[in-house]
Amino acid sequence: MTELTYIGKPARRVDALEKVLGKAKYIADRKLPGMLTARCLRSEMPHARIVRLDVAPALAVPGVRAVITSDDFFEQGLYGFPVKDKTMLAHQKVRYVGEAIAAVAADTPAAALAGVEAIVCELEPLPGVFDPEHALDPDAPQIGPDRPDGRHPNFLDTLIVRKGDPLAELGECAVTLDQRYAVSPQEHAYIEPEGALAVPTREGGVMVYAPNQSPFINHGYLAMVLDLPHNLVRVIQPPVGGSFGGKDDLVYETSAQVARLALITGRPVRMTFSREESLVASYKRDPMRMRIRLGADRDGTLRACKFEGLMDSGAYASESTFTAWRASIHAMGAYRYAACDVDITCVYTNNGYYGAFRGFGNTEVCAAIEQAVDELAEAVGMDPMDFRLKNCLHVGAETAHGQILTESVGLPECIETVRRLSDWDRKRAEYSAIRNPQSAIRRGIGMAALYHGTSLGAEGADYAASTISIEQDYSVDLTSGLTDYGTGSRTVFTLIAAEELGVKPARIHMQRPDTNTALESGPTVASRSTMLGGNAARIAAGNLRQILDYAAADLLGCELHQLVRAGESYVGPAEEPVAWEQVVDHAREMGLALSAHGKWTAPRIDWDHHRGRGTPYMAYHFAAQVAEVEVDMRTGSVQVIGFWAVHDPGKVIFPQGAYGQLYGGITQGLGYALMEQITYVDGYLQETNFDTYLIPTAVDVPEIRGQFVEAAFSKGPYGAKNIAEPAMVPTAPAILNAIYHATGQRVRELPANLERVLLGHDLAKGGSAKACKLGLKTA
Amino acid sequence: MTELTYIGKPARRVDALEKVLGKAKYIADRKLPGMLTARCLRSEMPHARIVRLDVAPALAVPGVRAVITSDDFFEQGLYGFPVKDKTMLAHQKVRYVGEAIAAVAADTPAAALAGVEAIVCELEPLPGVFDPEHALDPDAPQIGPDRPDGRHPNFLDTLIVRKGDPLAELGECAVTLDQRYAVSPQEHAYIEPEGALAVPTREGGVMVYAPNQSPFINHGYLAMVLDLPHNLVRVIQPPVGGSFGGKDDLVYETSAQVARLALITGRPVRMTFSREESLVASYKRDPMRMRIRLGADRDGTLRACKFEGLMDSGAYASESTFTAWRASIHAMGAYRYAACDVDITCVYTNNGYYGAFRGFGNTEVCAAIEQAVDELAEAVGMDPMDFRLKNCLHVGAETAHGQILTESVGLPECIETVRRLSDWDRKRAEYSAIRNPQSAIRRGIGMAALYHGTSLGAEGADYAASTISIEQDYSVDLTSGLTDYGTGSRTVFTLIAAEELGVKPARIHMQRPDTNTALESGPTVASRSTMLGGNAARIAAGNLRQILDYAAADLLGCELHQLVRAGESYVGPAEEPVAWEQVVDHAREMGLALSAHGKWTAPRIDWDHHRGRGTPYMAYHFAAQVAEVEVDMRTGSVQVIGFWAVHDPGKVIFPQGAYGQLYGGITQGLGYALMEQITYVDGYLQETNFDTYLIPTAVDVPEIRGQFVEAAFSKGPYGAKNIAEPAMVPTAPAILNAIYHATGQRVRELPANLERVLLGHDLAKGGSAKACKLGLKTA
Repeated sequence: MTELTYIGKPARRVDALEKVLGKAKYIADRKLPGMLTARCLRSEMPHARIVRLDVAPALAVPGVRAVITSDDFFEQGLYGFPVKDKTMLAHQKVRYVGEAIAAVAADTPAAALAGVEAIVCELEPLPGVFDPEHALDPDAPQIGPDRPDGRHPNFLDTLIVRKGDPLAELGECAVTLDQRYAVSPQEHAYIEPEGALAVPTREGGVMVYAPNQSPFINHGYLAMVLDLPHNLVRVIQPPVGGSFGGKDDLVYETSAQVARLALITGRPVRMTFSREESLVASYKRDPMRMRIRLGADRDGTLRACKFEGLMDSGAYASESTFTAWRASIHAMGAYRYAACDVDITCVYTNNGYYGAFRGFGNTEVCAAIEQAVDELAEAVGMDPMDFRLKNCLHVGAETAHGQILTESVGLPECIETVRRLSDWDRKRAEYSAIRNPQSAIRRGIGMAALYHGTSLGAEGADYAASTISIEQDYSVDLTSGLTDYGTGSRTVFTLIAAEELGVKPARIHMQRPDTNTALESGPTVASRSTMLGGNAARIAAGNLRQILDYAAADLLGCELHQLVRAGESYVGPAEEPVAWEQVVDHAREMGLALSAHGKWTAPRIDWDHHRGRGTPYMAYHFAAQVAEVEVDMRTGSVQVIGFWAVHDPGKVIFPQGAYGQLYGGITQGLGYALMEQITYVDGYLQETNFDTYLIPTAVDVPEIRGQFVEAAFSKGPYGAKNIAEPAMVPTAPAILNAIYHATGQRVRELPANLERVLLGHDLAKGGSAKACKLGLKTA
Repeated sequence: MTELTYIGKPARRVDALEKVLGKAKYIADRKLPGMLTARCLRSEMPHARIVRLDVAPALAVPGVRAVITSDDFFEQGLYGFPVKDKTMLAHQKVRYVGEAIAAVAADTPAAALAGVEAIVCELEPLPGVFDPEHALDPDAPQIGPDRPDGRHPNFLDTLIVRKGDPLAELGECAVTLDQRYAVSPQEHAYIEPEGALAVPTREGGVMVYAPNQSPFINHGYLAMVLDLPHNLVRVIQPPVGGSFGGKDDLVYETSAQVARLALITGRPVRMTFSREESLVASYKRDPMRMRIRLGADRDGTLRACKFEGLMDSGAYASESTFTAWRASIHAMGAYRYAACDVDITCVYTNNGYYGAFRGFGNTEVCAAIEQAVDELAEAVGMDPMDFRLKNCLHVGAETAHGQILTESVGLPECIETVRRLSDWDRKRAEYSAIRNPQSAIRRGIGMAALYHGTSLGAEGADYAASTISIEQDYSVDLTSGLTDYGTGSRTVFTLIAAEELGVKPARIHMQRPDTNTALESGPTVASRSTMLGGNAARIAAGNLRQILDYAAADLLGCELHQLVRAGESYVGPAEEPVAWEQVVDHAREMGLALSAHGKWTAPRIDWDHHRGRGTPYMAYHFAAQVAEVEVDMRTGSVQVIGFWAVHDPGKVIFPQGAYGQLYGGITQGLGYALMEQITYVDGYLQETNFDTYLIPTAVDVPEIRGQFVEAAFSKGPYGAKNIAEPAMVPTAPAILNAIYHATGQRVRELPANLERVLLGHDLAKGGSAKACKLGLKTA
């Protein structure tokens, strides 16, 4: 590969200026002449029949323009993927507290609120399911409709991985472990709550500005539930104030609600959520309870893993079955095993609802397996770093699924690098030695390793597309079907296109996602933007470059292979350089089209869901993180005082962006580890604002030292894989392992809040009232 | 409707300057570095088995880079719509002289020719079908494969219209006529022969510049026969030097051939046809033989029509079954009947092949029915103008298909206007009086009336789409899925978008058709551009206008309904005007998307093919034309000395363009009437260049006086219908009727060449050797 000009070099984020200047228009910043405000009536019961719903009194409220219910959606707006179980407004019954029942559009926010309050809505309570352990009991209240296969209607799915006979292997192991772990739900806590703005069009259609992750999926749902032809629906993504997996389903519902209200009133309609509304109504990270049995030989060779997980999906499936699949794939961690079984079951309850959240599935299981591996290393009597190095995946190794990793496995180097950077050996020895039951402040250092599949893997068809064109003023328009909700992917695509086209990044206008102008590219999830969208941008720009090369060769009177680039100029064998603009002009004179498309489809992979074997992903991100903590044994307070993260995302395209992802992800993982707690009491959420739902602030976060091991993946753009999700995944277990190192007491249930750290907390011995019974029955 | 600023006003054709300056790059003007030249080996037999095809000697010719045969196409490249009967290169047999058998790509035209000559191709002759009358004989040589329905394999289709019992009605008529007519094939004779240029892309795909009518259809065929995913195929339409229906199938074949050669060689490949190649290889207007029985009451009330037509489709179907359908719908002319039967049958022969040509179907039948009506008027003893006025369609009338015409029927006004303009009554009387058998130079005046369905009608789903966007420099990009191959539709779309958006037409860049950037809109055929594409452009621009209106109202602090436009500026109730650019800037600041789509779908229509009843078209173009001729009775030479054409295309959008269509169409109709003759002798074309195939030149064409009756159609853009095809349709019968008026002798077979005019020519009494036997058997 020739030397790179823009890839991997310092660059300005394409939307930095508009954001720091306050010019980026989020939904809450938008107003249009004649715009109405919308607001939802939400359920105050976790499970109930809607016995009466009378909107007439609301319509009589001055300023109220329209009120809608589920009857305003085609077939009541049933949507969801892969499980179609949710309506755009509750139909006949509600399944969780906060579920939207009706929506009002009014001239002012006050009139909208008055309208909501005027709706007559009578709910008849139904018994609820609040403990996932009992969701599949024969007499458990039924949440969803009957299943066609006759299974329990509260059962969603069980996902498996199978290799050999782990119970037999465990019986032969010199050292074994059998432990239980639990993780709390987690709220996305994006700066910008949910919202959407719909504008009716003159032809009876609707244009929706929505901070959704995947505008094309929103587009499809809108056309379906509004019963409109696809060409009359348009979805545009404005700047998004964070998503982390959280702006899928609920924003589609919000979009459908404001779209229907706009179609009825003929006026723009906007809804924005308050923080309380966002916390109560939105889906969160699925909580999980896990039992892990691990075994190793005396020499520390890992031999077997049996992993059982029960995932609470809440009232609706959302992405939970995908989350469970991803959990199953990653449950055994980045290690080699002779035998391995994973079973992850997910069920309906009436505890709010759960869906995608950064690292979905892996974040949950990694918090457990990386503690279990630490515990087993201790039992074997090995340093956890050595134990992981001995057993981890490397080039040529076979995963527990039976996939041979032929390239791009930077894990051993990640572990060795983080060991050096963190001064692990010295600190580990020092803190172990001084672990004094009498000292009020104790220090510990812990680690966790990671592997994380890139993109959708076996979840679905994996492709992305990009378009590129040259404007009259010689600037370049670039689109992607994948979106940037804060991840920095627009800058990644810009740099790739600039590199490939051979023009300065500043020449490129990276367009906002718009279903009218971009090409459908699947959902923007699963850390797939750089690999998929990056390859699409690379191909699009390369195709445009090819067109310009013909023009340059013609202008310079030479063959294509004689062309040389000097900055943006072209040079032929015997001529003065010609500027890029001259080449563009000449291409126009030649009648050449000055635009191109690029589409990239991921290599075909194979996963056998029934046998639990195959190739789940084309490539993996690897990482090792080390946390250093100080625990106040009087209060249980944990301060993370040092953090080192060495990641292998393949080639780094946009370093500032990659470091931003890394630091942001670790911060989110720190919150998951120590403070972010969601509690449902009989279906009622206890933490309804940031006064009770605590997220890390600047004082909680230490200086993080990140470094990249760039183990290039041959099919990635310039060798890139992914970075967005994996940044947060190993953080919680690294911190938990450090706490144990400091205190000598395991906290096997997240978050490790003051009480749990102070009192010690072992699920096997009791733990919190709700989460201790890990019978882990599966359907 | 408010007053129009650009619609119907003088305007410059958007591509006028590039064309008059010679800057428009047709395929023949294009070269790319490394480009190869392609050339086809063509059949020299009308019907033969390919018993040996050895390309190795060609590959040994210096400079030859690749040779392809039908084996180079997926499933041999079978394509065609609605009848899939043709291959991109002949497979196993040939069906007409000129059919492409193999294609060679070489460094130079000379090497390509040498390569073609080196191919070893042995053909074993098969008996052929050269007379459509005998195509369906039980022992006729079989041209195509067996039909699944067991019918004769040379049978293509029979299309019908049915109303009442015309034979019974004819029996009751006081005046009847039973006559036979025939029309010759016609060559499109576009200035630019066929060609295509393919460029291989880096991802294994292909970009094709092709002067095709319908790039999206070409795109679909290319993906199919090259076995490529759709996103790896791109078709761009360069400027096209005329098409008239002729650049569909053969250009798709040429595109597929150069595309495959480009994929094989990795280099751009271009093929351009010589005039001889174009004449021999290309499809032409289907010849037809017709028998018409007409009857009227003594007072001149038309009562019944029985119309039988036999259409020669040649070696392949191409659009012939559509042509036959359109012939059946238009066969009875623009008149009211108590009863009417039409049967049009089309069959395979080995006489070249036939496809779409301007006014396809109607041009052929109009030449017959408008003579028959003239003859019947004479038999009744009425002036032909009066006879037509008495019997023609008007608002409220029912067509022979059972369709009530509720609006936009300008026919009576067209007839009355052309009567006045042409000074019909005086000239008719004068020339009738002096019709002297002894005079060497005689004059006559004749007329024909027309109705012509707009767009596809019942042939297929009828829709079109357009996109519009604002560039950084405040210029406006407009695309259409419909193409301009000389018709002026790009200017029509520009004017409509300018009117709707409220900006000067000069601000708009009407993009060239490109399957990457435009939206699929069905084929560009059947005079559908203005109605379908115009509505799409109107909607797209209106949607963009709506977005800008929000920005303008916000900028001016007013409500939408308070906005007033002054030129390109916006004015609010209490403010200074703001310029369009300011509004665009403000819209950008508001985060609004500055682009829009427009899609228009024609109202649903219903045609029952089995019963021959229904609504074939949503609207019709109407016209009346008058020709004045001078006949030299010594030579048979006919000079058209005056021509008047009054047409109802609905609202005229682009007057210069509409007049251009009118004058061009009449000129093409004049050629059809008097000189354009295609003769196949045992399958061999006799007229292989413009020395034998005569088309009108400037000295043949009189000053044409055109006028428009703008009977607005409520669903057309600003009331527009169509103009492209109908311009030529009534011209031939108007001239034939004038010749009869001058000479007293009917020439019922086109063209009315010297010999036929001189000797008189009556098919019923003999006529030319090949065309007289009008048994009109149907299958």
